Amino acid sequence: MTATSPGNVVPIDRNGAPSLDPIMALVANGMNSVNSVILDRMQSRIPLIPELAGHLIAGGGKRMRPMLTLACAELLQYPGTRHHKLAAAVEFIHTATLLHDDVVDGSGMRRGRRTANIIWGNSASVLVGDFLFSRSFELMVEDGSLKVLKILSNASAVIAEGEVSQLTAQRRIETDESHYLDIIGAKTAALFAAACRISAVVAERDEAQEMALDAYGRNLGIAFQLVDDAIDYDSDGATMGKDAGDDFRDGKVTLPVILAYARGDADDRAFWKAAIAGHKTSDDDLAHATRLLRETGAIADTMARARHYGQRAIDALGPFANGQAKAALTEAVAFAIARAY
Amino acid sequence: MTATSPGNVVPIDRNGAPSLDPIMALVANGMNSVNSVILDRMQSRIPLIPELAGHLIAGGGKRMRPMLTLACAELLQYPGTRHHKLAAAVEFIHTATLLHDDVVDGSGMRRGRRTANIIWGNSASVLVGDFLFSRSFELMVEDGSLKVLKILSNASAVIAEGEVSQLTAQRRIETDESHYLDIIGAKTAALFAAACRISAVVAERDEAQEMALDAYGRNLGIAFQLVDDAIDYDSDGATMGKDAGDDFRDGKVTLPVILAYARGDADDRAFWKAAIAGHKTSDDDLAHATRLLRETGAIADTMARARHYGQRAIDALGPFANGQAKAALTEAVAFAIARAY
Repeated sequence: MTATSPGNVVPIDRNGAPSLDPIMALVANGMNSVNSVILDRMQSRIPLIPELAGHLIAGGGKRMRPMLTLACAELLQYPGTRHHKLAAAVEFIHTATLLHDDVVDGSGMRRGRRTANIIWGNSASVLVGDFLFSRSFELMVEDGSLKVLKILSNASAVIAEGEVSQLTAQRRIETDESHYLDIIGAKTAALFAAACRISAVVAERDEAQEMALDAYGRNLGIAFQLVDDAIDYDSDGATMGKDAGDDFRDGKVTLPVILAYARGDADDRAFWKAAIAGHKTSDDDLAHATRLLRETGAIADTMARARHYGQRAIDALGPFANGQAKAALTEAVAFAIARAY
Repeated sequence: MTATSPGNVVPIDRNGAPSLDPIMALVANGMNSVNSVILDRMQSRIPLIPELAGHLIAGGGKRMRPMLTLACAELLQYPGTRHHKLAAAVEFIHTATLLHDDVVDGSGMRRGRRTANIIWGNSASVLVGDFLFSRSFELMVEDGSLKVLKILSNASAVIAEGEVSQLTAQRRIETDESHYLDIIGAKTAALFAAACRISAVVAERDEAQEMALDAYGRNLGIAFQLVDDAIDYDSDGATMGKDAGDDFRDGKVTLPVILAYARGDADDRAFWKAAIAGHKTSDDDLAHATRLLRETGAIADTMARARHYGQRAIDALGPFANGQAKAALTEAVAFAIARAY
């Protein structure tokens, strides 16, 4: 990874940029099977369910989490197919979370398309999310591993706790870095960790290997979310598929804001306080916020933090043999970080 | 049960009215243990979670579903305590559903108190519901029965389908009785059925006994919901803890409306069409609707349908030995029906 000096974002050459191609090639066959399970199991005799779920599921997501389950199984040279159903269960949990998140945030755009809550209303999004969440447990029960059920039911509870914690922290400029890390560790990284860890369970590996994959997924998840939160101040709808400045207008205290607030002078702090409280929502205010984030090095240092967690993810793979799978998982980390620019 | 002539509601003498006392006495010790599990497992390091969940959980619900699990276990003379945790899991699923329902319906009152969505907002209600739902699966996983997990994960998916189906039928006067029965069978009766059935699983009884308890719970659940839907046109906030006419104003096509619409003349049908479409929402409109429901015998016949399902519930207990538990379960059915008046 390229070193950066504080306050200075190094643009990455798109030609040489890390990509998801290696991991996608690694798991291509398995993902066809996972996609079949997803399409099959989102069906219902109530037509609105596959219609709404299909909008989000077919809507261009990368399916990072099931890809990770499959790639970790490749890393362990697991020869079976049990993990296909479980990877679909993980994606259903994620999809249910997205549906509920968009209701909670009142979001209008995701992955470059109108959100389900805008098209079908909040009620339908809440209830179809509940359906997918239930369906994910049905899939896990069919697999029959109580250990997998334990890991994923715990991850689900932790995700919900993280979402509630984020809601509580919203519009509170006092939120500090460690509180923020707790939140993203719960709302994002817990499911990445579980997605990776369950592959070691189906492959019947020991606790150490389970926890190594858990650590890989968890650190990757944190890096992923840090980059997401940096992107929110540095994207437009066309590139990232959602509206820039959503977090700013929602009063979400993400790491860029925490750093800029901590490093700012009295005027800057007054601005951030007012902005997070919801009193600065114009395009000019967002432009001023972005300028402060750049001047204080907050965006660059959020990316530096992301690289730190990315490196920890890569190092967690240390115990596993080198090869195609490890290289693909390593490049997935680099991709998660580089996708910002 | 007293026979009624169509169009004529027989008031039940409150002194001689069936009560929940026998079932409550039967399961009192077990319910203390269930309540401890509920209070213990709704905790979280995020204070908003127990605060919001506690508002609803401590808010005077009868805990019908966990009581049924415990009473059915008594019927089977199951000597263990495994079902205490599972009964708490059932109550968590129910509580999560209530939290999401109140968001979906925009309800302001439940059990005579302001709803959580009014006090803490829709977002918090959605997310705390998700937490309780996840927690319920954690409890089931701790118990470790894949059969129970299968029954309750399936019930959860069916509930969500029922809720979506209800949403789709809303404001559609074309909804017929069989469609309505499908909806309440899913949104209400499936969890009653599962709550009863799992007691046979922990007591290791055969499929026939499992399905007998399933049938008891399912028919009781249908009767319970039919009565609820009749009450909605015949209660005030003081007696039932929610606002009379909520279904009317929400355009929910419940059995009373289906019968009154089917039996009405052209003017009546025009009124119901307009009302269900949302064009008749005044107190006078509600009074007119209630008058039509009485004149056509729709309320009385909804109660007659409830008695039919109540009788089926009682008959499903046929294979089990007479005694205190069977008497209590029988009186619980009579209570569910008689609570209307």
